[in-house]
Amino acid sequence: MLVVQKYGGSSVATLERIHGCAARCLATAAAGHRVLVVVSAMSGETNRLIALANALVRPEDDTEHRGPYVPSAVRTPEHERELDQLVATGEVVSAALLAMAIQRAGGRAVSLVGRQLGMQTDRSHGRAKIVSVDAARINAELDAGAIVVCAGFQGADDRGDITTLGRGGSDTSAVALAAALNADVCEILTDVDGVYTTDPRVVPTARKIDRISYEEMLELAGQGAKVLQIRSVELAMRYGVHVHVRTSFDDRQGTMIVPEEPTMESTLVSGVALERNEAKITLVGVPDVPGVVARIFAAMAELDIVVDMIIQNAGAGGLADVTFTVPEAELERASAALGQVQFGAAPPAIRSDREICKISIVGLGMRTHAGVAAKAFALLAAEGINVQMVSTSEIKISVVVHERYGELALRALHDGFGLAHGAADEAAAP
Amino acid sequence: MLVVQKYGGSSVATLERIHGCAARCLATAAAGHRVLVVVSAMSGETNRLIALANALVRPEDDTEHRGPYVPSAVRTPEHERELDQLVATGEVVSAALLAMAIQRAGGRAVSLVGRQLGMQTDRSHGRAKIVSVDAARINAELDAGAIVVCAGFQGADDRGDITTLGRGGSDTSAVALAAALNADVCEILTDVDGVYTTDPRVVPTARKIDRISYEEMLELAGQGAKVLQIRSVELAMRYGVHVHVRTSFDDRQGTMIVPEEPTMESTLVSGVALERNEAKITLVGVPDVPGVVARIFAAMAELDIVVDMIIQNAGAGGLADVTFTVPEAELERASAALGQVQFGAAPPAIRSDREICKISIVGLGMRTHAGVAAKAFALLAAEGINVQMVSTSEIKISVVVHERYGELALRALHDGFGLAHGAADEAAAP
Repeated sequence: MLVVQKYGGSSVATLERIHGCAARCLATAAAGHRVLVVVSAMSGETNRLIALANALVRPEDDTEHRGPYVPSAVRTPEHERELDQLVATGEVVSAALLAMAIQRAGGRAVSLVGRQLGMQTDRSHGRAKIVSVDAARINAELDAGAIVVCAGFQGADDRGDITTLGRGGSDTSAVALAAALNADVCEILTDVDGVYTTDPRVVPTARKIDRISYEEMLELAGQGAKVLQIRSVELAMRYGVHVHVRTSFDDRQGTMIVPEEPTMESTLVSGVALERNEAKITLVGVPDVPGVVARIFAAMAELDIVVDMIIQNAGAGGLADVTFTVPEAELERASAALGQVQFGAAPPAIRSDREICKISIVGLGMRTHAGVAAKAFALLAAEGINVQMVSTSEIKISVVVHERYGELALRALHDGFGLAHGAADEAAAP
Repeated sequence: MLVVQKYGGSSVATLERIHGCAARCLATAAAGHRVLVVVSAMSGETNRLIALANALVRPEDDTEHRGPYVPSAVRTPEHERELDQLVATGEVVSAALLAMAIQRAGGRAVSLVGRQLGMQTDRSHGRAKIVSVDAARINAELDAGAIVVCAGFQGADDRGDITTLGRGGSDTSAVALAAALNADVCEILTDVDGVYTTDPRVVPTARKIDRISYEEMLELAGQGAKVLQIRSVELAMRYGVHVHVRTSFDDRQGTMIVPEEPTMESTLVSGVALERNEAKITLVGVPDVPGVVARIFAAMAELDIVVDMIIQNAGAGGLADVTFTVPEAELERASAALGQVQFGAAPPAIRSDREICKISIVGLGMRTHAGVAAKAFALLAAEGINVQMVSTSEIKISVVVHERYGELALRALHDGFGLAHGAADEAAAP
């Protein structure tokens, strides 16, 4: 069996933990498996390198910005290329150290980084897309009996220049390599022990999910469940890679993310997610004429602002109200851009509201069971929570409520849909 | 004109200094030159990475060793490969940062590292030899008008694995690239302003040398002058690369290291060097039979111990005394190994002496002028200094004296041979 194991930054944060990862790799190899490892940079290392670059290129008279801020004038493609060259060293360091630790413990190991990985990407530095994987070197090393330790997050373009896949890219690296090598499983080893029905820090009755479909995981990841990069889930779905999210600290089974299985539809709701960092924008009195609304969202797209939950109400006098949500951090840019849109003689009033949050209910069962939305509204009403916006997809219902009710709403929906620990079935209890 | 500029670790030690290097690169480009830069890791970075690796592979019960110590059992070729992968990141970081700084100041720059450099080496990790340089990528970037910033110290072998050239390898990188690209000059920018007639910290009258031949520089570098790696001087000599050692902190001219020029022979002595870290080993009563002495030095060679200044005196009764010097740090290993050599029935007595130092007088003029040795002895005798050992080569005389006389001897020889500041000619005075 070929096992891909991905260790996140917290799992390789110290030399002691690196020894722990080495022991786990060796145990997997000792069980008779071929082992391909993908590592992230040690916790904090990527941020340290970015801060170094930012401090270097910050204008001399800029004493205000100390955080991850780069003036847009220097964010040229040439700068992005160098930034990739720089930050990719974080994963090189942890890959080399883990390979050394495996060797030290008596195993055979080799680290592969950058162009050695055979992972060719396009030239989009900082957010590169994988074009192809040439696994010749990896296969040769595996055939020679080595545990292969790959630097995550990085690839190389057709010129041999180092590229990075964007934040959380090591998950994507692991799934892409698992797909290219036709691995039996891609284990994502992290500091949580699996995917939960909701955030256990907010809802104490949250329960670990044993098996979940790609589709449900995509919706949960898109709605604020931070366990796995959404892009890696898409990739896993496309290539049918079985992903196992589990803790790196012990041997417990975590959550298997797999193709949809017939039994899955019997569960009405699989998980509930809360996204706090959303803001709502309402344009009151938009001319109800073809093309006007398109102009609004073209302005947002131009700024790379992700728009969610669009609602349009036809109003009186040929005017409509348009409401949508954006990430809270983008609210100012979004409002400023909307002020520039040409609406004609009577521009709409622009209202924004930061004090909202979004709660999403996800489950394959929704496709065949009616009444999920009705039940959700009833559960929220029972707690006296007003629903400001609603949007639905095939397997998801999202509602926007005042942010002060976010946690209460999450608990009410989670427990109301029978997700609470011990409520669903006895087998799921630890 | 194509100018290669090599910046050492102290020249890129801080972000402020990196901006200084960027300004210098841009000034060189603005003067109409093509500029190829080679950088070392930021001061301390290489040691930090090595310490990380050493801490990782140190035995758990070893609380004693905190320094750069790796048990020989883990110094396998596989470990050395990973160590190269790890430490080479130091130069990648400084190369990317310098390229960013040049871009920030309005220039075009691109960093090239690892395999991108086209510098192919053998597979000897940690001490790789350059096999060939494919300058296609470098030339393409120069042709496109970029300042090319190369990571020093590293190359890649035929498999694409990262190799390092050994300590000080960035000098070697710079000279090798200058040779491959047929550069007009290879500037070594450092924290001293050139090569001196001797160590100015010891001899206040030391004078900066304007021009020196490869041969003299080789002898001085081999005898403790730490300005330049000896290997880079050998390489410069082989390919006729003009090397300019100068400070990175201002625009002063430094020292040109060039092929021998007719005028150089008029200077009897070019420089005087002191090597403190030497020790002397004497074997008293070695059987004066062919092959026995060879056994001594074979034992040293097996331990990679560099032996210098060998003297053999035929003694009475078919026994000889053999004296030689070794680096002081190797004295214990050397003595232990000599204890294992088979000398026959009556093994020689082994005596060692740490309290010595070596002073070398270097000058092309010695080839044609007799009496340099006689003058040196007279100068030392005038100070009451006893000479314990002597060895001579075509352009060098080395003497061993008690270490307490080292600095006195250096001053006496330096000033006695007319090297003192202002003594040689007025033009050399600042």
